[in-house]
Amino acid sequence: MRAEIIAVGSELLLGQITNTNAKFISAELADIGVDVHYQTVVGDNPARLEEAIRIAEERADLIIFSGGLGPTKDDLTKETIARHIGVELESNNQALLSIQAYFKRTGRHMTENNKKQALVLEGSTVLENRFGMAPGMAISANERTYLLLPGPPHELEPMFRDEGIPYLQRLSGIQEIIVSTVVKFFGIGEAELEYKVQGLLASQTNPTIAPLASKDAVTLRVTAKARTAEDARQLIEPVLCELHNQVGEFIYGTDDDTLSSKAASLLTGAGLTISAAESLTAGLFTSLLAEEPGISASLKGGMTVYDIEAKTKQLGVDSQLLETYGTVSAECAEALAEKIRDRFQTDIGIGLTGVAGPDTHDGQPAGTIWIGLSYKKKTESYKLRLSGARNTNRLRAANFALYYLIRKLESEKS
Amino acid sequence: MRAEIIAVGSELLLGQITNTNAKFISAELADIGVDVHYQTVVGDNPARLEEAIRIAEERADLIIFSGGLGPTKDDLTKETIARHIGVELESNNQALLSIQAYFKRTGRHMTENNKKQALVLEGSTVLENRFGMAPGMAISANERTYLLLPGPPHELEPMFRDEGIPYLQRLSGIQEIIVSTVVKFFGIGEAELEYKVQGLLASQTNPTIAPLASKDAVTLRVTAKARTAEDARQLIEPVLCELHNQVGEFIYGTDDDTLSSKAASLLTGAGLTISAAESLTAGLFTSLLAEEPGISASLKGGMTVYDIEAKTKQLGVDSQLLETYGTVSAECAEALAEKIRDRFQTDIGIGLTGVAGPDTHDGQPAGTIWIGLSYKKKTESYKLRLSGARNTNRLRAANFALYYLIRKLESEKS
Repeated sequence: MRAEIIAVGSELLLGQITNTNAKFISAELADIGVDVHYQTVVGDNPARLEEAIRIAEERADLIIFSGGLGPTKDDLTKETIARHIGVELESNNQALLSIQAYFKRTGRHMTENNKKQALVLEGSTVLENRFGMAPGMAISANERTYLLLPGPPHELEPMFRDEGIPYLQRLSGIQEIIVSTVVKFFGIGEAELEYKVQGLLASQTNPTIAPLASKDAVTLRVTAKARTAEDARQLIEPVLCELHNQVGEFIYGTDDDTLSSKAASLLTGAGLTISAAESLTAGLFTSLLAEEPGISASLKGGMTVYDIEAKTKQLGVDSQLLETYGTVSAECAEALAEKIRDRFQTDIGIGLTGVAGPDTHDGQPAGTIWIGLSYKKKTESYKLRLSGARNTNRLRAANFALYYLIRKLESEKS
Repeated sequence: MRAEIIAVGSELLLGQITNTNAKFISAELADIGVDVHYQTVVGDNPARLEEAIRIAEERADLIIFSGGLGPTKDDLTKETIARHIGVELESNNQALLSIQAYFKRTGRHMTENNKKQALVLEGSTVLENRFGMAPGMAISANERTYLLLPGPPHELEPMFRDEGIPYLQRLSGIQEIIVSTVVKFFGIGEAELEYKVQGLLASQTNPTIAPLASKDAVTLRVTAKARTAEDARQLIEPVLCELHNQVGEFIYGTDDDTLSSKAASLLTGAGLTISAAESLTAGLFTSLLAEEPGISASLKGGMTVYDIEAKTKQLGVDSQLLETYGTVSAECAEALAEKIRDRFQTDIGIGLTGVAGPDTHDGQPAGTIWIGLSYKKKTESYKLRLSGARNTNRLRAANFALYYLIRKLESEKS
């Protein structure tokens, strides 16, 4: 079954609202294995809507509409479809009763135009609207299926999930289901990742492997189709293994894992405590860790040591060391990590220092960052050369610190 | 000019991401009076993309594409358009240099497929990508204009606003210009704000006043149309005055101001220093301040005091006080503010303590938060009762601390 989604509403074309309905419907259809080939948005204009329907009929067996079922003159979806497929509109008793009940319940006056909402396509299956007044409907004609849904997402989503999807499953006798796992990467760009696993990407058909675009993360989505969820998972498993073999050092988790949730679960799982001394990130590292409930078992605290005085007087870093090596140095990062670890008496100390930008600092270009990691009396440091804007660099520095921490904790485990 | 927007990407058809680009582009086009008649989404499939282009050409003069300009094999937008309108792709030197510079700067290996991103349509106007690698481009052919934009919103939005819109204005000879000022609010809900200024909202036609939907902020956008920017600004000015009269206490800035940029400029402007002791926010407050370049003149540092021991042993809060009042109390917040102020010898000390959630703590429900503010030996505190999820509460707490700091600094100024 090939589907097309047509969202109707001039407010979408004016950029006043985002078409979240298309995303929702598409994701639900993907889960039952229905391919969506096009999404279309058209305004409250019957001629253009009919043109969109004609085009959709040439390339889809299932056309799902959202919007245009309301009481106003602008709401023309069902009228246009009725004319187009040649059926009448008839008043639906059940829908009319619930509209009347709605007005009685809220004590508001029911104006005549609200009766329009109870009109449905003759011969259609009516879908109840539990969160609004306009019912949905489904009808088959000319070897196509037309499914009409109300525009407001809080009405559309439960209606489509609870009535639309089962209707489509009955209609098509679809048995196949889709299961996917998102694999999350850090420390590698999208292009480089794809280059490294190109053989795997090219050879897979079920499951498929595809990058999932995202601002903050590099990911691969592994998607399998099968008769049962268990069968699908068995198809996915060997692909995950192969990804770990090929690019495992850059994988930090799957699905809902974030760098901070992964680090937090490794820390609390191992019963380890942590503290951090932060210069350029100024508390961002500890703040990211604190996003995780239950982290208080591991996160004792930290210091923001933004200027030299804070580093020396407050934290106790040797001022001679800073004079010799500068604050943007492996030595400074390691000293920060060790001093904070000793001070808060934690198993692990993290030190973050560097040049966020936009200006250079201590003769070092913006984006030069050192991360110190002191773990049970052994201290190491990592250098980053980032090229983003100031706050991208700060966030990436904190994320790299989480990433190195995760790698350290994983290697200690094994 | 009739426009159609074609978003390219299978991830949209799978419902993995929402098509926010279509909304953004549509809203920008509405501002310059260009009508959008259709939005279309098509997958990474050249045959279907070409079909979508053919259909769009029959109903639009301007076709704007988003997505499919990246380095991977799936990225096919410009290749398909080149074939369709019959031009070659050529390597753009400027784009190639900036891609190479990007890899050099970050010390990462540039794989061969990245060169593909520097290919542009022969004869097109190239639009610089300041936040990514793939350049945009604009070209006219067959009495149509084709505008190609990268898919990631943080790349597309500045490119379209700063280069795409002026390009279209030049192209169409649009004379009227649009100037808008976004007024930013904190500490008031959108519905309440709209209720308070409903008279103003209803009476305005030029400039118009409208809420600008945003996940994180309550804003009003004041938009004027005029022949010159100066004329437009003169229309806007009295409306801003009236907003200040009616709801000034909730206004913290305009346009690109954020709570942290406003607080930072007030601090550095007054030559005041600041430090913070943070429990539930765990460094988020100092980290937000550190987003501003030049803040090192004012921000000395801070402490994350996540557990009781950190509060008492590290920062020196009286453990008797914590036993008497608990850590979720005005007394604790004020003690944190005073202790950190004294320790870092700053003019201002901020203390943040409370229950982020999801669980209750010290017998207090999630969302109970105290903010202490110590300014030149005078200390006060503010109570919040928030109802969000854990990290929404943490962020709101840090933002409220910035808001109270701004109000304090503003009142000291006047």
